[in-house]
This record gives sequence, structure tokens and C-alpha cells, in this order.
Amino acid sequence: MIKVNENFLKLQAGYLFPEIGRRVAAFAKANPKAELIKLGIGDVTGPLAPAVIEAMHAAVDEMSRAETFHGYDESGRGYNFLIDAIIENDYAVRGVKIDRSEVFISDGSKCDTSNFQEVFSASNVVAVADPVYPVYVDTNVMAGRTGPADGSGRYGKMVYMPCIAENDFVPELPAQGVDLIYLCFPNNPTGAVATKKQLAEWVEYAREHKAIILFDAAYEAFISDPALPHSIYEIDGAKEVAVEFRSFSKTAGFTGVRCAFTIVPKELKAYKADGGTCEVNPMWARRHCTKFNGVSYITQAGAAAVYSAKGKKQIRQTIKLYMANAALIRKSLAELGYQVYGGVNAPYVWLKTPDGLGSWDFFDKLLERAHVVGTPGVGFGAAGEGYLRLSAFNKPQNVKEAMKRFRKM
Amino acid sequence: MIKVNENFLKLQAGYLFPEIGRRVAAFAKANPKAELIKLGIGDVTGPLAPAVIEAMHAAVDEMSRAETFHGYDESGRGYNFLIDAIIENDYAVRGVKIDRSEVFISDGSKCDTSNFQEVFSASNVVAVADPVYPVYVDTNVMAGRTGPADGSGRYGKMVYMPCIAENDFVPELPAQGVDLIYLCFPNNPTGAVATKKQLAEWVEYAREHKAIILFDAAYEAFISDPALPHSIYEIDGAKEVAVEFRSFSKTAGFTGVRCAFTIVPKELKAYKADGGTCEVNPMWARRHCTKFNGVSYITQAGAAAVYSAKGKKQIRQTIKLYMANAALIRKSLAELGYQVYGGVNAPYVWLKTPDGLGSWDFFDKLLERAHVVGTPGVGFGAAGEGYLRLSAFNKPQNVKEAMKRFRKM
Repeated sequence: MIKVNENFLKLQAGYLFPEIGRRVAAFAKANPKAELIKLGIGDVTGPLAPAVIEAMHAAVDEMSRAETFHGYDESGRGYNFLIDAIIENDYAVRGVKIDRSEVFISDGSKCDTSNFQEVFSASNVVAVADPVYPVYVDTNVMAGRTGPADGSGRYGKMVYMPCIAENDFVPELPAQGVDLIYLCFPNNPTGAVATKKQLAEWVEYAREHKAIILFDAAYEAFISDPALPHSIYEIDGAKEVAVEFRSFSKTAGFTGVRCAFTIVPKELKAYKADGGTCEVNPMWARRHCTKFNGVSYITQAGAAAVYSAKGKKQIRQTIKLYMANAALIRKSLAELGYQVYGGVNAPYVWLKTPDGLGSWDFFDKLLERAHVVGTPGVGFGAAGEGYLRLSAFNKPQNVKEAMKRFRKM
Repeated sequence: MIKVNENFLKLQAGYLFPEIGRRVAAFAKANPKAELIKLGIGDVTGPLAPAVIEAMHAAVDEMSRAETFHGYDESGRGYNFLIDAIIENDYAVRGVKIDRSEVFISDGSKCDTSNFQEVFSASNVVAVADPVYPVYVDTNVMAGRTGPADGSGRYGKMVYMPCIAENDFVPELPAQGVDLIYLCFPNNPTGAVATKKQLAEWVEYAREHKAIILFDAAYEAFISDPALPHSIYEIDGAKEVAVEFRSFSKTAGFTGVRCAFTIVPKELKAYKADGGTCEVNPMWARRHCTKFNGVSYITQAGAAAVYSAKGKKQIRQTIKLYMANAALIRKSLAELGYQVYGGVNAPYVWLKTPDGLGSWDFFDKLLERAHVVGTPGVGFGAAGEGYLRLSAFNKPQNVKEAMKRFRKM
């Protein structure tokens, strides 16, 4: 008799964005004339950069001729033309030395941050920020690293680290020992970014407790302050305790194209039941090459073009435009008396709901009265209750119009 | 202290194809002038069909304009234009009714057949054919459904079903009760195909034992005999007990493009510890949408073109060419006195090694003396010892030359 994975039964109501989708669809159906402005799901709106388009057309043409056709990426880990561009442009320029064997190209950071936990035991204690990108939590629930959820939606055994205005939305070191720590800077959803000093404390904690940090840097391209770290490997000793996830989704508008990468340093070790150590890199390589078959050649060719001189200039322009949206949201809402956070080094503005409204209540009010879609903070965790996330990914005229509607409301 | 997933430590020597890659690279380095012919890894060699190329160029252009740009595939399950083409062309024409909600578009059958086991308990007993596509086994080892491997590479607790000449390489029903059954027809590696009667016996077994069949039909496009089933859903009652995996990799040369799909019928149920039942479709939907973020819009546009009138005609031509290769391999080797199987309704020829040679010994001999790369049968399981798989995916002139070299050897 086939038995289900009972851990799935612990999962709370559907994943956040489908739920938002359902509410928005219901509203749109009842109000077919309402012109909705979506500042909810963090999806880009700008087209791909011309340099990327050009590279992808060329790659499609290569696939049309037997002499230049590409089948399986035999290594399963990505093409060197892309890996080398990443090493040079994302790491070497910041003084971080990364070897080809430490880079794994994938189809998304959602997949990578979901899957990485597989190489670790189900007995590890997991720590996440609260609020948090729900994927880190749900995938650990599925893997059996938690107990059932309580009334606030928090799962047993999981360690939640509140990120609130008082700690600038950067979590404090946990009082108890934890084994696997998810950190995301620039942060989704709060828009906060950890300083080098703050990250160094985390690296030190991990070294002391023999813990591993899974560092999600999917939004690093939005950092404007030159003092802030883009990579956790800018911190001494981080290669011994941290995995880093990066994505082209937000950096280069690849949400509908799917390309990302993960850095797994050779120095990174985990522990066996017999007390011996185990290198994590070959374990991840085994997982990656057994369960995954590489990223489309056309996609990888497009991703490499992000690093060309033209590509860099073009994506900088688009990011500038999104960050001007973020600045406008911050300014407009602050003028209206809202408390706003983030939006300076990240494409998300984290907004305190007015009048003590709950996140979903404010979401519904905003949808009904302003026809603007946000993301309820509580969808990211109990400590997100009373907040709403607004995304800067939209056309400037839509963001302007949304701010006008906030004013009217 | 971060603990590793100890199940990974049970895994036997590296995944088969990387090992072949290493041996071939070493030979090529030592013999730089040898012109290798690769009939090993089942990778296509033909370019993408012109209809697919055209659709992909158009999709790349759509991604270059804000008005037609595609970000996240919000459903996470694939675009309806592709899902509808699949339902119509792969199922409705064979009298099988499939609903949109039963189709999940993904980036590969390797991923889907790897990941599907996650929704089931670690306590289930898994049955696989022997020889078998190694991914089914390795992913269950990682998930903790097996004990350690014995001397022949067989893992404890896993039920191996020998596929040998005596049973026409179609496994017999297991004597003991099993919960999760992997079947692959047309078969990789043996090239065997189950008849409707044989599949019906399996469906009956699954219904009786409340088991689930994971049916890998990645090679169905290569069936030439009109009496053979392309889908397990051609068998009455199969929707209650089977998941089906399909891929564009071999059908349309998408190994380097990455697109596949999985059918999870709404009727399919698994059992909870308390004896209640659980629908598998929403569990897989939750897994798919939590850990995966959809397939590139460009890729999906290309896949849909496979179903256009032009696309169908073009891919039929390519498949005909590969199957002519298979026929030539069968004929040439039979004339030389080899025992050959498969290659009629599948792109693989399964060859008994001569003179009682072991699989790897014959692999090495073939590499050294004929500069032809095959795949050692034992790499697919203990019962594959003494066999070699030859792939029909190559240019006709290369296959002709390979056969010439067999003759000389």
C-alpha cells in the first residue's frame, strides 16, 4: 500500500502567491472594469536587454544546424563560457576567488534554495528569519525537519529569528545552537541589507557552531551603497561555512527565462554520524547531476550576454528605473505618514499597515479601494503581520498612478 | 553541528555517464588522433526542427518588447497553449481524456522521475527493473528508501525485477508486495516495449496491492508497431494507479533545450498513516509550485511548435532517420553473430557481449579497438552485466562507419 509523505500534511494553506492570485482573480471577475496595478508578486516587467535578445537569437540559430547544435550539457553543471563570466564579473572584481568546480548553473534560485537541504540530515535544526521567503520553510517541512504548525503558522522545531524595526530587520544570533541557517540579503521581503560587520558575526557564529549558512543573494544587483557586501564571501572565512545563491531573474529580467547559479566552496564541510567530515561540494555535485539535466543552451547563452559590456550597461539602466520606482514609493508613502522600510538597496518597500490593520485586511482594502495589489507581510511569517510588501518591479507610470491612488485612499 | 544526509554515503561509484565521460576523455587524451564515434549516452545529434526554430525566434522577439514580455508563468504549471496541444495530440487521439489540471510542464523527465518520490513516505517499498535507468534507484537511495549496497551494487530493501532474454525484457510481477513501481516503456536501456496485455497485468497488480506505477514513456515516439501502447492510460483503470512521464528530449531533440511533462490523474490516491486516502495530484501540485518556477516561455513556445502540422512532419523525419540507424545496427551486428535486442520500437539496441566478456571489458575493448563508445549494460544494474547498449542517435554516416569498425574488430 502506497503511503504518502505525512510531512506534506503539515503544510499550511497554499503557497502565498497562488492565494494572492485567487483573491485578485475573484476581485477582477467581480469588477471587470477595475484597472489593477500589481505591486505584489516580485515579477519583473521590463523586456530582456537587447544584448541578451541578440545572444539568444544567435543561440537559437546554432541549434538549427547539426554542426553547431547543442544536446545535453555533458557536465550537467553549466557551460564554462557562463561559469567563467560569473567568476570574473561577480567574484574576482570583489577580490573573491572562485573555482569553476564551485559553480553550479541551474534554472532558478527557488529550485536551488529548495533543493540544497537534501544533502543534509533530517535531524538538523533549521533557523530562518521571520518574515521569510516561504520556500525555505515549506521545503524543510516537506523534508521532515519540523513538527506541525501552531496557531500562528509557525512549525515546531524550526527556529524563527524575528526581523523587526528594532533590529533593522537583520536577525540577531540565535540563543540556542542551530545547524542550518537561511539568510537573504538584500532581503525579500523587508528590503533590509546586512552590513559587512553584521555578516561577519554570522560567519563567526557558523564557524563556532559548525553550522552552515545558505545565503540567498538573488537581489545583490540592487545594492546602491558601496559599503554593503554583495557576496557573503567578502567576509573572511565564509567559504568554510556558506553556500551562496544568485539569480538572473531580477538582475536581468529572467523570471520567464529561468537561470541562476549556486556557489558551493570546496572548503565547505558537514559532519557524519561517526564524527568524520564530508565535503559538501561533491555531495551537491552528485545531487545536481543525478536529479537535474542542465539549463537550456539558449538560456545560458543569454545569461552570458548579461556580462558583456553592452549587456551590463543595459541591465544597469533597467535596475535604475526600478530603483527610481522604489524611491518614489518610499517618498510618496512617507509623505502620507506611512512607516516605510527598504527600497534603497533592494527592490522591495516594506510598509507598516495603518491603523493597526492586519496584513490581509490591508491587502483587501488596497485591492478594493485602490485596485493596487501588494503582498501581505504575514504571508512571509508571523512577524510580518501588520506589514505589506510593495514591489518596485513595474512601469514608472503605473507606480505613479498607484501612488496617486494611495493618496486618494 | 551540521549533519550530512547519511543516505548519500550509500551511493555507489559516480553516476554512470560521468564515469563513461572520464574513460572516454582519458582515451582521447592518450590517442588524440582517434576519431571517436559516440553511441553511448543517449543524446540526440540532429538540429531542432525548423518549425521549432521559427517558434523560438518569435518567442525571443516577444521577450524583447514590454507589451509581449513574459515573466513568471504564474500558475507554475505551464502555459495552456502547450498543455492543450499535449492533451489533444498525445492523449485525445488515443481516446484518453486528460484534464488541464492533470498536466505539469517541467524542464525534464530526469527531474520529474527524480522528484516524484518526494510526495511518498520513506517507508514505501520500491520496485525497479534490472537493468534500469540509474536515476530511479539513486534518487530513492538519497531519500532513504534503501539499505546499503551489496557486492553487486544492489541496495537493500529495494526490489529488483530482472529483465532478461527469457522474459523478453519485460519484468514479471513481484512475488512480494511492493508500493512504488518504476516502469519504462519503450525501455531504456533494453529497447523492449510492453504490450497492452502486459501493461494491463501491471495495472491490475497495482490496483490489487494499492501500489502506484511511475510510468516513464520518454521514448514513446519511437514505437513503430501500431498494436503497442504509447500511454499507460490506454489501459482501463490506469488513471487510478499510474503517473506518466513524457519528454521532448528524444521526441524532438530537446536534450539541450529542456522540456518535459508529467500527467498526474485526479483519480490517483495514496494512503495516510491513519488509513485515510489522499489525492496525489494536489500534493504534486504543491511540490511542483513550491520547489520549481516553471519552464522558459521560449522553450514552451518551441515545444508547442512540435505539435504544429509542420513540426509533426519534421520530427517524424528525424525519428525515421534514427530508426534507420537502429535497423542498420541490428542487421549488421546480427550478421556478425551478435545477439541483439531492441532497436525496433526504441532507439536503443541491447547487445549481448561476445565471448562472455564483462560489460566494462567490452566497453573498453570497443573504445580501444574500434574507437566506438557504447554504454556498459552493468551500469544499468547487475542483470545488465554482459550486455552493452548502443544508441541510434547519431548521423547515418557515423553509424555506418561504426558498423564497419565492428566488422574489422
